[in-house]
Amino acid sequence: MTALTHFNDQGEAHMVDVSSKPQSLRTAISEGFITMQAHTLSLIENGGHKKGDVLGIARIAGIMASKKTSELIPLCHPIPLTHVEISFSADFHLHRIRCITTVKTTGQTGVEMEALTATTVALLTIYDMCKAVDKGMVIQAVQLLEKQGGQSGHWQRHSTDNSQ
Amino acid sequence: MTALTHFNDQGEAHMVDVSSKPQSLRTAISEGFITMQAHTLSLIENGGHKKGDVLGIARIAGIMASKKTSELIPLCHPIPLTHVEISFSADFHLHRIRCITTVKTTGQTGVEMEALTATTVALLTIYDMCKAVDKGMVIQAVQLLEKQGGQSGHWQRHSTDNSQ
Amino acid sequence: MTALTHFNDQGEAHMVDVSSKPQSLRTAISEGFITMQAHTLSLIENGGHKKGDVLGIARIAGIMASKKTSELIPLCHPIPLTHVEISFSADFHLHRIRCITTVKTTGQTGVEMEALTATTVALLTIYDMCKAVDKGMVIQAVQLLEKQGGQSGHWQRHSTDNSQ
Amino acid sequence: MTALTHFNDQGEAHMVDVSSKPQSLRTAISEGFITMQAHTLSLIENGGHKKGDVLGIARIAGIMASKKTSELIPLCHPIPLTHVEISFSADFHLHRIRCITTVKTTGQTGVEMEALTATTVALLTIYDMCKAVDKGMVIQAVQLLEKQGGQSGHWQRHSTDNSQ
Amino acid sequence: MTALTHFNDQGEAHMVDVSSKPQSLRTAISEGFITMQAHTLSLIENGGHKKGDVLGIARIAGIMASKKTSELIPLCHPIPLTHVEISFSADFHLHRIRCITTVKTTGQTGVEMEALTATTVALLTIYDMCKAVDKGMVIQAVQLLEKQGGQSGHWQRHSTDNSQ
Amino acid sequence: MTALTHFNDQGEAHMVDVSSKPQSLRTAISEGFITMQAHTLSLIENGGHKKGDVLGIARIAGIMASKKTSELIPLCHPIPLTHVEISFSADFHLHRIRCITTVKTTGQTGVEMEALTATTVALLTIYDMCKAVDKGMVIQAVQLLEKQGGQSGHWQRHSTDNSQ
Repeated sequence: MTALTHFNDQGEAHMVDVSSKPQSLRTAISEGFITMQAHTLSLIENGGHKKGDVLGIARIAGIMASKKTSELIPLCHPIPLTHVEISFSADFHLHRIRCITTVKTTGQTGVEMEALTATTVALLTIYDMCKAVDKGMVIQAVQLLEKQGGQSGHWQRHSTDNSQ
Repeated sequence: MTALTHFNDQGEAHMVDVSSKPQSLRTAISEGFITMQAHTLSLIENGGHKKGDVLGIARIAGIMASKKTSELIPLCHPIPLTHVEISFSADFHLHRIRCITTVKTTGQTGVEMEALTATTVALLTIYDMCKAVDKGMVIQAVQLLEKQGGQSGHWQRHSTDNSQ
Repeated sequence: MTALTHFNDQGEAHMVDVSSKPQSLRTAISEGFITMQAHTLSLIENGGHKKGDVLGIARIAGIMASKKTSELIPLCHPIPLTHVEISFSADFHLHRIRCITTVKTTGQTGVEMEALTATTVALLTIYDMCKAVDKGMVIQAVQLLEKQGGQSGHWQRHSTDNSQ
Repeated sequence: MTALTHFNDQGEAHMVDVSSKPQSLRTAISEGFITMQAHTLSLIENGGHKKGDVLGIARIAGIMASKKTSELIPLCHPIPLTHVEISFSADFHLHRIRCITTVKTTGQTGVEMEALTATTVALLTIYDMCKAVDKGMVIQAVQLLEKQGGQSGHWQRHSTDNSQ
Repeated sequence: MTALTHFNDQGEAHMVDVSSKPQSLRTAISEGFITMQAHTLSLIENGGHKKGDVLGIARIAGIMASKKTSELIPLCHPIPLTHVEISFSADFHLHRIRCITTVKTTGQTGVEMEALTATTVALLTIYDMCKAVDKGMVIQAVQLLEKQGGQSGHWQRHSTDNSQ
Repeated sequence: MTALTHFNDQGEAHMVDVSSKPQSLRTAISEGFITMQAHTLSLIENGGHKKGDVLGIARIAGIMASKKTSELIPLCHPIPLTHVEISFSADFHLHRIRCITTVKTTGQTGVEMEALTATTVALLTIYDMCKAVDKGMVIQAVQLLEKQGGQSGHWQRHSTDNSQ
């Protein structure tokens, strides 16, 4: 019932058999944050206009990373993604950037890991591009917000979940 | 002074020129956490002994991901790593797992991104292996703890830094 | 009407949503040329028989590259290709080699980029293998010749198009 | 003298032995063009400001591709690059975009292929992002402009070379 | 009849056209062995319990490698795998480990190469992890045991086949 | 003394620290065999001349695979190879093909795994290209023949080792 499905009865890891699952539309939405100094956030925001587009590059990195998910996560099935979208928003009060990723596929298994991988690599790319001025940036609250499709159906994070 | 070094004067991204930097020993240490339900944590802990080694697989995933850093982070230099070590510890009070990664190289640029990438992918792998029982897990406080070597020298996180 | 579909209304790049497109047979044919010294071309032609098969290796490189297209082109969808064929012909008058690639899939989006990527990497491989004797070789006129299938249907290059 | 160095005496391909070559600074500069309809060029130019940054994304794709050169070109040595820079300029008269790439390394072999691969993938990415409005775009005159360092020393393209 | 299907009539390699083949469930089972000193085998067996899980890591390496098959084998079609399972058994009499891999997909072509690649990389990983104590280990009898599905139907190795 | 160096004292896998090892020339030579029906072997041998160059393609696959070794073998260090050479010889009496690979680097750790990986993938590629006519082919006796350089110095297989 509560078993970890990535292991067989002997406790050996395997790529779960989804051969008999029907193909269906699946969606996953993830979010994550990167907290930084106020000065760093203003550099990023100005950069979008005239000094170097940190968020544009992070978006591309996240989209490309979503396509590499099954290379990175050992037991993930390779999945032909049909949509990836990443958006950023800045919170100047908490001086952090929020990243939200939506991923879709028509396949036999879900795309939660693809969404989380995209969010994470997008945030790591922001770190990389700003680390010369702010090594103390912190990636926070990378989590699934919602998934749809497949056997386990619709799942949505409740505000009382163990998030930040 | 506080410019983002990954952009030239026109605001165009480039891979920073490190051709004239000397090769030297460089070390980076990163950490990160994944918070989960108490039940999930006990499944992981028991698994190490007899039901499927979640942390052993996450460790391998993190080590392998560190070698892929320059494929994932657009402006990272490819670096021949000379050491990667990942350790986990469980906190049953806060029901979370802490991941610490140490990376070394003898090269012309640092390995902060390699350490952060390894930590992140290790935590994502834990998520993947346990998501069938706990979709609400959250990755928290992925951050650099320390770096040594290179032009910018020694850097260490202060407890008052903007971490969790 | 004439919008660039890889951007949303805010001008942010995304992987276009093809989730609701039907799977159908799609074909793309691309071509390209590499111009060289007459002596280099004769080395390649002789090599096929007894001194090293430049074109055989370039063909393999092109086929393998077509499978990497979605890793190289940021917003390309990963597509399980069902056919790749590359042929070369030598023009001794213009001392150049022509490369033609045909790619097929049964999928939700087209394979133009896969055909163009295969042609390009095949030509780059010819350059690599001959650059010790002829650094001045030039890749010319890499272009789509024809595509079939999908919503936009059949497209064919007219002789009056902006080719070489 | 004029032999193809990627083959041994039996005509069998190999990765050339560079073990005894000294490490030295090497630079390569390549260029290439993509020709398009005047309307397409104006879409790209406007996009940089408010509608989607085609050239910014193409630049990232080219830089990332340069790091994949030894995966794409069968007999290329893997090389830890120390610098990659890509710049674009638009020619409204000939309605084409020129791409120039500079690559550096401190290594035992040259980076010509890395520069050419970056230029090519940058141009292919422009094609991908604009193909919805202009399938007839053509990649032209991808060629080496200059190389420095290593045994064969300095090489520079003459204006009378077999370019476009 | 007995032609090598990976070549066309001119003897040129291509990725075989499977566009018109129906999608169906396909399974392949492969095996392979690694022979070693008796002492090495006991180190591995003890390691599973308390000193380092060689076989657990080899299993992960094999599963991940199966997903890379079309990158490694030039003319293999990329296939979205739906199941991979690897099991090991030790033979203390012949002091060797046997590896058996089962791979499944629902696709247009078979998964024999994915099963063989997984088995091989799993065995190579065992070699890597034990080579400090036993460089003489030998990989033996990597072969297909059975395949099901597709046009050529069911195939099973006979005990009189040219195995070890 | 006889410990498995890829594990620390707690039995946790790590990428061994080679940071303090000097760079030196290292060579490894591996071999392996693929046994087949006599008819298959004659198809391959004829193919080299006029019907499709199985061995030429297998050689390229092996060389390219050697560059992917650190992606495939979890705890391998990434190494910039300086030479890879693969040769085949046919034994019509035992109807098998022998593959020998030589790999060199100037680095901090050895290239045994690169040589073994190249040999294995070359043999798997032969299997792939001939499996339409002979599914029963068997890969045999993949083993290290010799290594030179590094702390452990020269090692050579004795004829009495546990080979085939």
